[in-house]
Amino acid sequence: MTDKLWGGRFTEKAAHWVDAFGASIGFDQQMAKEDLEGSLAHVKMLGKTGIIPQSDADKITAGLHHLQKELAAGKLHFTVENEDIHLNMEALLTAEIGPVAGKLHTARSRNDQVATDLHLWLKHRLPEIKEALTNLQTVLVGQAKVHAATIMPGYTHMQHAQPITYGHYLLAYFEMFQRDWERFDFTQKHTDILPLGAAALAGTTFPIDRTLVAKELGFDQLYHNSLDAVSDRDFALEFLSNSAILMQHLSRMAEELILWSTFEFNYIELGDDFSTGSSIMPQKKNPDFAELIRGKTGRVYGALMGLLTTMKAIPLAYNKDMQEDKEPIFDTYNTILGSLHIFTGMLSDLTVHEKRMAQATTHDFSNATELADYLATKGVPFRQAHAIVGELVLKGIKSGTALQEMPLSELQQAAPQIENDVYAELTSKAAVNRRTSLGGTAVSNVLKEVARDEKIIAAHEKEQASQ
Amino acid sequence: MTDKLWGGRFTEKAAHWVDAFGASIGFDQQMAKEDLEGSLAHVKMLGKTGIIPQSDADKITAGLHHLQKELAAGKLHFTVENEDIHLNMEALLTAEIGPVAGKLHTARSRNDQVATDLHLWLKHRLPEIKEALTNLQTVLVGQAKVHAATIMPGYTHMQHAQPITYGHYLLAYFEMFQRDWERFDFTQKHTDILPLGAAALAGTTFPIDRTLVAKELGFDQLYHNSLDAVSDRDFALEFLSNSAILMQHLSRMAEELILWSTFEFNYIELGDDFSTGSSIMPQKKNPDFAELIRGKTGRVYGALMGLLTTMKAIPLAYNKDMQEDKEPIFDTYNTILGSLHIFTGMLSDLTVHEKRMAQATTHDFSNATELADYLATKGVPFRQAHAIVGELVLKGIKSGTALQEMPLSELQQAAPQIENDVYAELTSKAAVNRRTSLGGTAVSNVLKEVARDEKIIAAHEKEQASQ
Amino acid sequence: MTDKLWGGRFTEKAAHWVDAFGASIGFDQQMAKEDLEGSLAHVKMLGKTGIIPQSDADKITAGLHHLQKELAAGKLHFTVENEDIHLNMEALLTAEIGPVAGKLHTARSRNDQVATDLHLWLKHRLPEIKEALTNLQTVLVGQAKVHAATIMPGYTHMQHAQPITYGHYLLAYFEMFQRDWERFDFTQKHTDILPLGAAALAGTTFPIDRTLVAKELGFDQLYHNSLDAVSDRDFALEFLSNSAILMQHLSRMAEELILWSTFEFNYIELGDDFSTGSSIMPQKKNPDFAELIRGKTGRVYGALMGLLTTMKAIPLAYNKDMQEDKEPIFDTYNTILGSLHIFTGMLSDLTVHEKRMAQATTHDFSNATELADYLATKGVPFRQAHAIVGELVLKGIKSGTALQEMPLSELQQAAPQIENDVYAELTSKAAVNRRTSLGGTAVSNVLKEVARDEKIIAAHEKEQASQ
Amino acid sequence: MTDKLWGGRFTEKAAHWVDAFGASIGFDQQMAKEDLEGSLAHVKMLGKTGIIPQSDADKITAGLHHLQKELAAGKLHFTVENEDIHLNMEALLTAEIGPVAGKLHTARSRNDQVATDLHLWLKHRLPEIKEALTNLQTVLVGQAKVHAATIMPGYTHMQHAQPITYGHYLLAYFEMFQRDWERFDFTQKHTDILPLGAAALAGTTFPIDRTLVAKELGFDQLYHNSLDAVSDRDFALEFLSNSAILMQHLSRMAEELILWSTFEFNYIELGDDFSTGSSIMPQKKNPDFAELIRGKTGRVYGALMGLLTTMKAIPLAYNKDMQEDKEPIFDTYNTILGSLHIFTGMLSDLTVHEKRMAQATTHDFSNATELADYLATKGVPFRQAHAIVGELVLKGIKSGTALQEMPLSELQQAAPQIENDVYAELTSKAAVNRRTSLGGTAVSNVLKEVARDEKIIAAHEKEQASQ
Repeated sequence: MTDKLWGGRFTEKAAHWVDAFGASIGFDQQMAKEDLEGSLAHVKMLGKTGIIPQSDADKITAGLHHLQKELAAGKLHFTVENEDIHLNMEALLTAEIGPVAGKLHTARSRNDQVATDLHLWLKHRLPEIKEALTNLQTVLVGQAKVHAATIMPGYTHMQHAQPITYGHYLLAYFEMFQRDWERFDFTQKHTDILPLGAAALAGTTFPIDRTLVAKELGFDQLYHNSLDAVSDRDFALEFLSNSAILMQHLSRMAEELILWSTFEFNYIELGDDFSTGSSIMPQKKNPDFAELIRGKTGRVYGALMGLLTTMKAIPLAYNKDMQEDKEPIFDTYNTILGSLHIFTGMLSDLTVHEKRMAQATTHDFSNATELADYLATKGVPFRQAHAIVGELVLKGIKSGTALQEMPLSELQQAAPQIENDVYAELTSKAAVNRRTSLGGTAVSNVLKEVARDEKIIAAHEKEQASQ
Repeated sequence: MTDKLWGGRFTEKAAHWVDAFGASIGFDQQMAKEDLEGSLAHVKMLGKTGIIPQSDADKITAGLHHLQKELAAGKLHFTVENEDIHLNMEALLTAEIGPVAGKLHTARSRNDQVATDLHLWLKHRLPEIKEALTNLQTVLVGQAKVHAATIMPGYTHMQHAQPITYGHYLLAYFEMFQRDWERFDFTQKHTDILPLGAAALAGTTFPIDRTLVAKELGFDQLYHNSLDAVSDRDFALEFLSNSAILMQHLSRMAEELILWSTFEFNYIELGDDFSTGSSIMPQKKNPDFAELIRGKTGRVYGALMGLLTTMKAIPLAYNKDMQEDKEPIFDTYNTILGSLHIFTGMLSDLTVHEKRMAQATTHDFSNATELADYLATKGVPFRQAHAIVGELVLKGIKSGTALQEMPLSELQQAAPQIENDVYAELTSKAAVNRRTSLGGTAVSNVLKEVARDEKIIAAHEKEQASQ
Repeated sequence: MTDKLWGGRFTEKAAHWVDAFGASIGFDQQMAKEDLEGSLAHVKMLGKTGIIPQSDADKITAGLHHLQKELAAGKLHFTVENEDIHLNMEALLTAEIGPVAGKLHTARSRNDQVATDLHLWLKHRLPEIKEALTNLQTVLVGQAKVHAATIMPGYTHMQHAQPITYGHYLLAYFEMFQRDWERFDFTQKHTDILPLGAAALAGTTFPIDRTLVAKELGFDQLYHNSLDAVSDRDFALEFLSNSAILMQHLSRMAEELILWSTFEFNYIELGDDFSTGSSIMPQKKNPDFAELIRGKTGRVYGALMGLLTTMKAIPLAYNKDMQEDKEPIFDTYNTILGSLHIFTGMLSDLTVHEKRMAQATTHDFSNATELADYLATKGVPFRQAHAIVGELVLKGIKSGTALQEMPLSELQQAAPQIENDVYAELTSKAAVNRRTSLGGTAVSNVLKEVARDEKIIAAHEKEQASQ
Repeated sequence: MTDKLWGGRFTEKAAHWVDAFGASIGFDQQMAKEDLEGSLAHVKMLGKTGIIPQSDADKITAGLHHLQKELAAGKLHFTVENEDIHLNMEALLTAEIGPVAGKLHTARSRNDQVATDLHLWLKHRLPEIKEALTNLQTVLVGQAKVHAATIMPGYTHMQHAQPITYGHYLLAYFEMFQRDWERFDFTQKHTDILPLGAAALAGTTFPIDRTLVAKELGFDQLYHNSLDAVSDRDFALEFLSNSAILMQHLSRMAEELILWSTFEFNYIELGDDFSTGSSIMPQKKNPDFAELIRGKTGRVYGALMGLLTTMKAIPLAYNKDMQEDKEPIFDTYNTILGSLHIFTGMLSDLTVHEKRMAQATTHDFSNATELADYLATKGVPFRQAHAIVGELVLKGIKSGTALQEMPLSELQQAAPQIENDVYAELTSKAAVNRRTSLGGTAVSNVLKEVARDEKIIAAHEKEQASQ
C-alpha cells in the first residue's frame, strides 16, 4: 500500500517518474512562507472557535513557528513523494509534533489552501511592483526636468515629423507607467480576497470564523461563494495581462534606446553597466539589456496566453489543470521586477548627446508643419497650405535646401502670403515653444507637467509608506 | 500626379490593389458616427477660439450635420482611394461645401483624430457591455433564488465531491461576472481621456481649447502628453484582456452546460431556441450555442494576442502598424456582446432536471467528507479520520454499498466513535445545510447571498440609469 | 413549427438574432465554389454506385451546374435562416429541381462536407502561396545579383559589426522564404486528404466509393478513420503556424526597411507606390506598407493562437466550436498573399543608396575583427588578440581615429606583430572579400549562391507549371 | 577594469544583480554537452586545416575531453560572472590548459556557437520525441485490436450520434499522432543544418572547412548564408508549433478520458498510478494526470506564442532578444516527452467498462440514422427520410420508447415503406458493422486498419534502429 497522505483508497504505488511529473513541490515551495502563515492563521482560528482544543492548537502553532525558523535558515527539505508544499509541510509538521499535526487540516482542503497561498503570495508582491514603477517614474521625471529644453526630432513612422524635447519624450513614458501603476493597484482589489474557508468546494461543516482568519492574514475581503473561491484565477490573469501591457511599454522604450544607440542615430550612449561586448568583435558595445527586455516581452505574453489557455473551458471547481497557474506568475513577477530595476538603472545612467539630437532637426524639413500652420494663420485653408508646402519640400529635397534656407522670393512664389517674419518660426526652438496647448511639447509645458508628476510620485510614496 | 489628399510630395499613382491593401475604410467606417462627432466638436472649438472665422465654422458645421443625416440614412458612399474614414469624410465634406472644408483639419492630424474616434467608439460601448453583464447577473440571481435548495453533486476533478445546490453554483458565476463588470468599469477610466489636440505628435501651435472639446464630447480627462495621446493603445489592450477573461468564464459555464446536457448527465435541457439539429441524425438536439461560445473564446484570445504583438516594440508616436488596432476591437465587442445576450437567453430558458440532479448524490460517496468531519468532531485527528473513511469507501465500492447503507456495527468496526446519530448527517440535504460558513452552500446562505447580489444589481442599474 | 432543414425534432422558432449569431453563411460562402465541386463529385459517385438512380443523379448534376453558373455570375442569394453554405446550397438546389435535391445528402453529413470544403479550399490556395513566395525569391535573387558587391555595414545588436554586401543580406531572406516554401509544401500533404465518406462520424452504411470521389476532386489520399476525418484540423493549424513563421520573417525585413528609410540611416528609398504622406506634415514620406505588414504579424499570430485555443480539449467528433476554424484561415490567406505581393513590389521598386551604405563602413571600427584575425594569424591567441584590439578601439573612439588611420608605430606599440601589410586588410572591401568560407559574404560567394538559388527557383517554377 | 572575457573596451564593473539578469548560464548549461561536442569538432578542424598548430589543437582537445569527463561526473562549476555556457567553458578550459585555450575561439563567434549548440541539442532530441510517439501509437494499436468490437456511443456535440467501437476511437488518435510524427520528422530537416562557420554574422577570413565540422557532428546540411545561419530560429519555432499541435491532440484525449471517468459516464477506470486522491474527501479518485496534461497545453501554447513574439521584427543578425529562445524549447521538450510517456502508461493501464459502454447505446436513439438510411434505400429522398425519423424520435422521447421498441404498425404509419426487416438494422452491432466504407467503424475495418498501422509502426521502428 502506498504511504501517500491522501492514500487510503489506493492500492498501488506510482513509479517515481510519474510522481515527479505530477508533483508541484519543485516550484510551489516558493510559497512556503505563505503556506506557513496561512496555517498559523488557520490554527489560531481553530483554537479560538474551539473546533480543536486550544492545547492542540498551541502545539501546532509551536510546530509551525519552528518550521518558519527552519525555512528562514534554509534547513527545510522537501520531497517529490510529498507532491506539493502543503503535504510537505504537513509531513514536516508531523515529524516535528506527531499525529496531532493531523488536526491542522480540519475544516480546510488543499483547494482553498493553495488558493490562499497564491493570493497571499501575490498580495505581498504587488506593492513591490508598484514601488518599482514609482522608482522608474521618479527617474523619468528627474531626467525630464534636466532635459525639458533638450531638442530632438519627433518621429512618426520613424520619419522626422516635428521637433520635440527629450524631456517631453520621457514624460510620455511617465504616463504609460502611471497607467501600469493604476492597473496593478486595481488588481490588488481582486487579489486581496480570502478564499480560506471554502474548503474543498462547498464550505465546511465546522463553525469556522473566516473574518478572524482574514484579519490575521491582513485580507480586506472574503470570497462570498465557496465554488468561486477555489475556482477563481482572475487575479492571476489580471496580474499577467497587466504585466503584458507593461512589457509592451518597456519593449517600445527598449526599441528606441537601441535605435538611438546606433552609429547612425547616436543620440544616446548607455552606461557600461548596461552594455556588453562581443566575443569576436572588439569594438562592439551592445545595448544587451534593452534587447533582452525587448525579448522578454515574449516570455510574458506567453505566460498570459498560457494561463488563459489552461483556464479555458475547465469546469468548476478545482481541477489539476490549475496547478499550472503558479509558474507563469512566479516567472512573470521576476521578469517584470527585474526589467523595471534594469530600466531604472539604465535611464539614470545614460549619456544624452544633446548636440547631435539638436543638429538632427536643423536640416530635415521637420519644420514643414510650421510653414503650413503659418499659411493657415494667414487664411489659407489648411489642405491648400499643406499642398503648397509639400511642393516646396519636394523642391528642397531635390536641391538640398532646407525651408529656412530658401530666399523669401522663392517662398513667396509658392505662396504670396509669406512674409519675412516666417524665418523666426522655422527654427526648431520656435517650433517646440509654440506648442503650448495642453500636452504639447513646449518647454514651459514640460516643466508644468514635471511639477504635476512630482505630486503623483509623492502620492505614491505616501501610499507606500502607509503599507 | 496622384490626387490623394496627402499627396503634394508624391509623383506616382499607386496601383489600386496596393491602395486596397493599405486602406482601412473597409472597417474604420464603423467609426463614421464618431468621426463626425469629433469633427463637430473640433470645428466648434476652432470657431469659438477664432482660429478660423466663425462663418467658416458655421459652414463646416452645417456640412457635417448634413453628412450625419446622410450617414443615418445609409447614403454615404466611401471609397478605397480615400483610404480611411477621415479622408473619406473630408472628401465628402469638400464635395458638399467646397474648399472651406480644408479648414476643418486646422490644428489636428489624423493621428489624434483616429485616436479620438476609437476612444469615443469604445467609450460609448463599454456601458452596453456592463449592461449586458448586469442582465446576465439578473438571470443568475433570479434562477439562484428559485433553485436555492435544488441539490446536485458538486465536482472537483469532474468527480463527485460533495453535494451543493444549483443555486449556489449559479452564484459562483454571479461573482465572476461581477469582477468582469468591475474590470470594464475600470477600463472606462482609461478610455475616457481625450487625445484630440495632440495633433501629429507634439501638440499644435494654434491656440486650441482642449477642455472645450472634451466637454463637448463628454470626455472626463485630457491626455497630458501629446506623444502619449497618439501612441497609447492601453485602453484597447485593457478592453481585450477584460474580454479574454470574460470569455474564459463563459467557456467554463458553456462546458458545464454542454456536459449537463449529455445523455449521461442529463441534468438540464436547453431550450429549442438555443439548440440545433443534425443534417444526418434526426434524433440530435445539440447545445450549439454553448459550443459556439466556447469556441469563440479562441477568437477573443487571438484578438488580444494579436494586438499585443502588433504593439510590441514599435517606437512612438504613430506607426501604420497601429491601423491593426480596430478590427480586433470591433470583432471582440460583437463577440462578447452577442455571447452575453445568448447566455442570458439560454439560462432563462433551460429546464432543470431536479430529480435527476438530486438522485445523483444518493449513491455516490459524496458524503464521505461528512463522515470524516463527524469523526474529527469526535476528536479523531482529521488525517486519521480521512484514512478511516477512505478504507470504508473502498469497501463500499467493492460491495456496492453506500456509507449510509452500512450497518452501525460495520461503521463502528472501522471507528468505535461512530454512533447512531451519524446517519442523519449522511444525507445530501444535511451535508448541504450544515455548510453555513460564509460562502458555504447551505440553502440559508444562498438566500442571504441572493439578497446581497440583488443590491449589487440595483446599484448597477442605478449607475446605468444615470448615464 | 420551424422550417429549418434539420428541424423535424424542433417545436419553436429561434429569434432572428439568435440565428444570426449561430449562422456561418456570412463567411463560409467563401467556400461556395468548393461546396458545389464537392457535391458534384459526390452525386457522380452516388449515381455510378447505384446508391441513387442515375436519372436522379443527372437531375441533381444539372441543377448543380446551374448553380455554378449563377454563382460565377454573382446571382446566388444566401440567407441567415439557412445557416451555412451547405444548407443554403441545398435550399437553392431544391428551389431549382424540387424534392429530388434531398437525395444529394444521402451518405454524407455536413460534418464531412464542411471538412471537404475546407480541405479543397486550402488545397487550391497553397500553390498560390508557394508561387507568391517564388516570385519574392526571384526578386531577391535578381537584386542580390545586381548588388553582389554593394558594401554595407553588417549589424549585430544593431551595432556595426562587420561589413557585408547588400546582396548577401538579400540572400539571407531567400533562405528564409525557401524554408517557408518547404513548410507550405509539406502542409499540402496533410491538406490533400479527402474526408468525404466519413459521414457524421462513423462512416456510412451505403456502398460508397471514396476513391472515385477523391479522383474526381483531385485528392491524393483518403482519411483512414472516419472520426479523425471529421475532427482533424491539423492542416488548418499547420497552415496558420507556417503563416506565423512567414510573417515573422516579413516583420524582420519590414523592420529593416523602415530603419534604412530613416533620415539617420538613409540607405534606401522606397518607391512612391509603397509610401504614403501625412495629413498634417507635408514633408513626410512614410514606409506605410512595411509598417502595416509588420503590424499584421499580430493578426496572423492571433489567428494561430485563436484556433489553437478553440481546438484545445474539445472531444471528438464535430463540435460547433469548430465553426470558428474558417475565418482565421480565410483572413490569414488574404494577409499573407497580400503581404507577399506587396513585398515583391516594394523590393523591386526601391532605390539603394550605395554610396551612403559604403561610407557607413569607413569610419566605424567594423574592421576591428580584421585586425584581431590578423593578429591571430600571426600566432597571437584569439582571446589576447581580441583584448589588444579592444584597447586600440577604445583609444580610437576617444581620439576620433579609425584603425586604418593609426600610424604603424602606434599599432606596433599595441602589438609588435603588426606590419605594414595590415592596412590592406583593413578596408571594407578586403574584409568582405576575405570571407570566402561557405556562406560567407565575399562577392564571389554571393554570386555562387545566386547561381544555386536560380536553380531552386527554376525547380519551383517547374513544379508549379506541372500542377 | 572588469575581468570579463569580452571586456577590453569596458571600464566599469556591472553590479552582480545586473549580471545575473543578463546571464543565461542558469539555463543554457543544459547544452553543456553539446557545447563541448561543438568545440571538439571545431578544434579538430582548426588543427587539420592548419589554422592553429596541430600541437595546440591537441592540447585543447585534451582539455575538452577532460571537461567532458568532469561534466559527466557532475563536477563542473559554472558562474554567473561568466554569463553563459560558452564563456564558462572557455574559462574552465583556460584554467585547465592555460592561454592556449584562447585559440579555440579562432574563426568562430558566440553567435554561431550558440546556434550550433541549440541545433545539436534539438537534433539529438527529435528522435526521442518520435520514439515516444511510436510507443504511444503502439499502445493505441494494441488496445484497438483488443477492442475492435467493443461497442460504445459515438458523439458529436457531446450528444449520442451513432454507435462506434472503442477500437475505432483509439485509431482516430493513432492517425493524429502519425501526423505529429511526420511533423517532427519534417522538422529534423530544418534542424539538421550546421551554422558553425558563420562566425559573428559574415563568415570568417580563416580557411575553415565547414564540411569537415558537419561530418564530425553528424550534420546533414550546411547553412548557405552566414547571416541566416546566426539569425534563423525557424527550427525552434517549428518544434514549438509541432508541440502545440501535439498538445492539442493530447488535450482532446485527456478531456475524453476525464469525462469517461466520471460517475455519470463511467466508461473507463484509470489505473491507480495515474490517479490521485483528495486531502479532504476520502472517496475521491481523480484523473489528475489527464487533467494536468490538459492544463499543460497552455504552457506549450504559451511557449510558442512567446518565441514568436520575441522573434517578431528583430533585425538580423544576432540580438540579445534571442537568448530567450532556449527556455521555451527546453521546457516544451520536457513537457511533451513527459506527457507522451504518461499517456502511454495511462492508456496501457486503464480498465474499459465494456458492458456499460454497450448499454449506453441501447436506449438512446443513436440508431436514428439507421432508420433514415433504411428509408433512403427504399427510395425516400434523404431529407424526407430525415424528417420522418425526426418526428418518430420526438414521439419516442415523449413516450420513453426507443425506435426498435415501436411496433411495426406505428413505424409504418410514419412511413409505409418500413417492413419487418427494419428491426435487424436497428441494433448497435448492425449499425456498426454496416459501416464498411473505407474509414468506417465496422469491426472488419478496424482490424484492417490495425494491420496497416502495425506496418507504419514497424517502419518507424526500423528508422529508429538505423539512427
